[in-house]
Amino acid sequence: MGQSEYMRTVGVEARKASVQICRASTETKNEALLSIGEAILAKRSALMSANEQDLESGRKNGLSDPMLDRLTFTDERFEIMVEGLRQVAALNDPVGEITDMSYQPNGLQIGKMRTPLGVIGIIFESRPNVTIDAASLCLKSGNAAILRGGSESIYSNLGLAGCIELGLEKVGLPAAVVQVVKDTDRKYVGELITMNEFVDVIVPRGGNSLVGRITSEATIPVIKHLDGICHVYIDKDADMEKAYAIAINAKTQRYAVCNAMETLLVSADVAGDILPRLVAGFLEHGVELRGCEKTVSILGAEVQISPAKESDWHEEYLAPILSIRTLDSVEDAVSHINHYGSKHTDSIVTENYTTARQFLQEVDSSSVMVNASTRFSDGFEYGLGAEVGISTDKLHARGPVGLEGLTSQKYVVFGDGQVRQ
Amino acid sequence: MGQSEYMRTVGVEARKASVQICRASTETKNEALLSIGEAILAKRSALMSANEQDLESGRKNGLSDPMLDRLTFTDERFEIMVEGLRQVAALNDPVGEITDMSYQPNGLQIGKMRTPLGVIGIIFESRPNVTIDAASLCLKSGNAAILRGGSESIYSNLGLAGCIELGLEKVGLPAAVVQVVKDTDRKYVGELITMNEFVDVIVPRGGNSLVGRITSEATIPVIKHLDGICHVYIDKDADMEKAYAIAINAKTQRYAVCNAMETLLVSADVAGDILPRLVAGFLEHGVELRGCEKTVSILGAEVQISPAKESDWHEEYLAPILSIRTLDSVEDAVSHINHYGSKHTDSIVTENYTTARQFLQEVDSSSVMVNASTRFSDGFEYGLGAEVGISTDKLHARGPVGLEGLTSQKYVVFGDGQVRQ
Repeated sequence: MGQSEYMRTVGVEARKASVQICRASTETKNEALLSIGEAILAKRSALMSANEQDLESGRKNGLSDPMLDRLTFTDERFEIMVEGLRQVAALNDPVGEITDMSYQPNGLQIGKMRTPLGVIGIIFESRPNVTIDAASLCLKSGNAAILRGGSESIYSNLGLAGCIELGLEKVGLPAAVVQVVKDTDRKYVGELITMNEFVDVIVPRGGNSLVGRITSEATIPVIKHLDGICHVYIDKDADMEKAYAIAINAKTQRYAVCNAMETLLVSADVAGDILPRLVAGFLEHGVELRGCEKTVSILGAEVQISPAKESDWHEEYLAPILSIRTLDSVEDAVSHINHYGSKHTDSIVTENYTTARQFLQEVDSSSVMVNASTRFSDGFEYGLGAEVGISTDKLHARGPVGLEGLTSQKYVVFGDGQVRQ
Repeated sequence: MGQSEYMRTVGVEARKASVQICRASTETKNEALLSIGEAILAKRSALMSANEQDLESGRKNGLSDPMLDRLTFTDERFEIMVEGLRQVAALNDPVGEITDMSYQPNGLQIGKMRTPLGVIGIIFESRPNVTIDAASLCLKSGNAAILRGGSESIYSNLGLAGCIELGLEKVGLPAAVVQVVKDTDRKYVGELITMNEFVDVIVPRGGNSLVGRITSEATIPVIKHLDGICHVYIDKDADMEKAYAIAINAKTQRYAVCNAMETLLVSADVAGDILPRLVAGFLEHGVELRGCEKTVSILGAEVQISPAKESDWHEEYLAPILSIRTLDSVEDAVSHINHYGSKHTDSIVTENYTTARQFLQEVDSSSVMVNASTRFSDGFEYGLGAEVGISTDKLHARGPVGLEGLTSQKYVVFGDGQVRQ
């Protein structure tokens, strides 16, 4: 694909800036992060007006209320952005970290040093706070970033880009360390994901259709975050109180998130005990239920549950809908998850050591849990400080992608004049 | 690209086998490795005949002597293959290794478990020993492998494939854990690198043209090993004895290898001292020299050295040819390396702590060394046991790719009934 003059300039500047940010000291990077936070607080009213512009066009263009809500700046959201910057500043600097240093018999000391990747392109949808999350993680990990947000939030994003620029300026880093693509024309996305010369990796944040399109068109490696068809399996040896709490939480704490449970698996040995109570809980939360034949027959005709179709096991509802399947064993649960799941996050509820161990080893997902709600699967909860997404890839980064996922390693070798025989 | 019936079957079988090998115990995998070694020794004469078939067609097809040499089985090479299998068996099993386990304030214990990637496709050129190296690393790391060797060594490869099958059979693992593509038609390479459904990663081993073609045509992620334009920089604070030994070794110990030095960089402060002696050493080894203006003028008219062209700094000679550049500072050396190098392996010779530290941080290569010959850059020398190649990529695996590079990690979360607030 040909490059416009504009995107070429963005690319050239990003590549140049990446050389400077990759050598910036931890102190400089932390100061930049804190200064960006100060700029956001100082520019609050200008940011609110920019945001109002986006909201106005959003209303005109008939954006749904939930979308408008996600788009809206509030005092609380400012606080969260600034707190996020402080948290990233407080994280250890991954760059230059040397690990696995050990001596070879010939006296060479060999280890690995963590290094930035270079230039990271991040493509995301409407939530403008992603601008700050993504910028802060790229900056701290020593990478230059090119951010392309949704057109619905362009004024808010550019407002935040101004704050980022102020923060970078204050510590003497070039503004091109974080660039926000100023034009919302879709062709620039196509250019960004094929600028191999200037961009080292693409991170798409958004729905499956966005990620799918980018993955198929990109010539640059993509760290993918695809759908989250997450499961909770209630084993026959589960503690029923934990099982109830975890299953209800994993489904109902939030619906439109990738780490919410979409399918509940229950051991046939305990289904008769736990399902009636659980189903009452779900119905109280207004969750629509779809069950396998066995589940439906266990619950009986009075319970509001419709038969699940094959397609239900493949679906990420992102809504108050739950499919339920009753299974004979942990082996069946593992098979179901590895076949129908999306390799995102799956949890077993059990008190049985051997069963837990088997589930952990055999489920092929980015996060595998024992006795915990799938809703914990995210960068903050894992102590990564923040995340640019949750990778369902196996190569490079898997699961929540924080600072480490945005870095690489190089071998470092300390010798004393050794030559090879 | 459409798939032939044959390659589709290979893919389906590999995917099935990957589920079994990923759960195989360390003991089973090690026994399989040792049994493959025993089969190689037991089948020595059959392997020699198969190899003779390849050599005969090679001679008929006018293969060069060095290529015929690389192709030839000898007692020593059998020993090396079997010893390699033993070494891989002796390595720690990476699969299931749990690291970075720590508690979050809510009592969740979160860490990472190492997992196989799934199915690995390896495409390589004539050396048949790669069949065993690649098979052993894939097997130990819990992956299924599809190997496609060069047509020149097809009979040798199939002979070795028979030994692998015997070894797998002996421990009850399916033969499809390691499959050698039986047909040397090039179209099967095209199919292999686009079977996204069945193959998780492609590792090409071979020259730039092979790797380049595969990278541009593959739809599956590729762990690339591209060219090695390696540098040694002799700093003004170098120990001159070490500098001499390292520079001579890095160039002349072997020529046609990716970790041999192609360009020597010398600080102007010491060029007058060290260059005449070094150049005499290179000429004694029959190395053709090409120098920058300054280098040529320092050496004077009597010395056999031709002026280097711009293209020389970009060239991987893989031959007894060396380009030499005299520079003013470590900054200039770093700039030269990051601009002209191939991000493979670069070494500084210095006794200066600050200079060494700067070089290590700023050179953007897969291996960066101080006071050591670039020739050490390989999996055996780094203690990885063996390697499937040396990655010049930054994503996923960088530098020599051993067992760890063929694995991924998943998050494991141990809870006690935690739900998210």
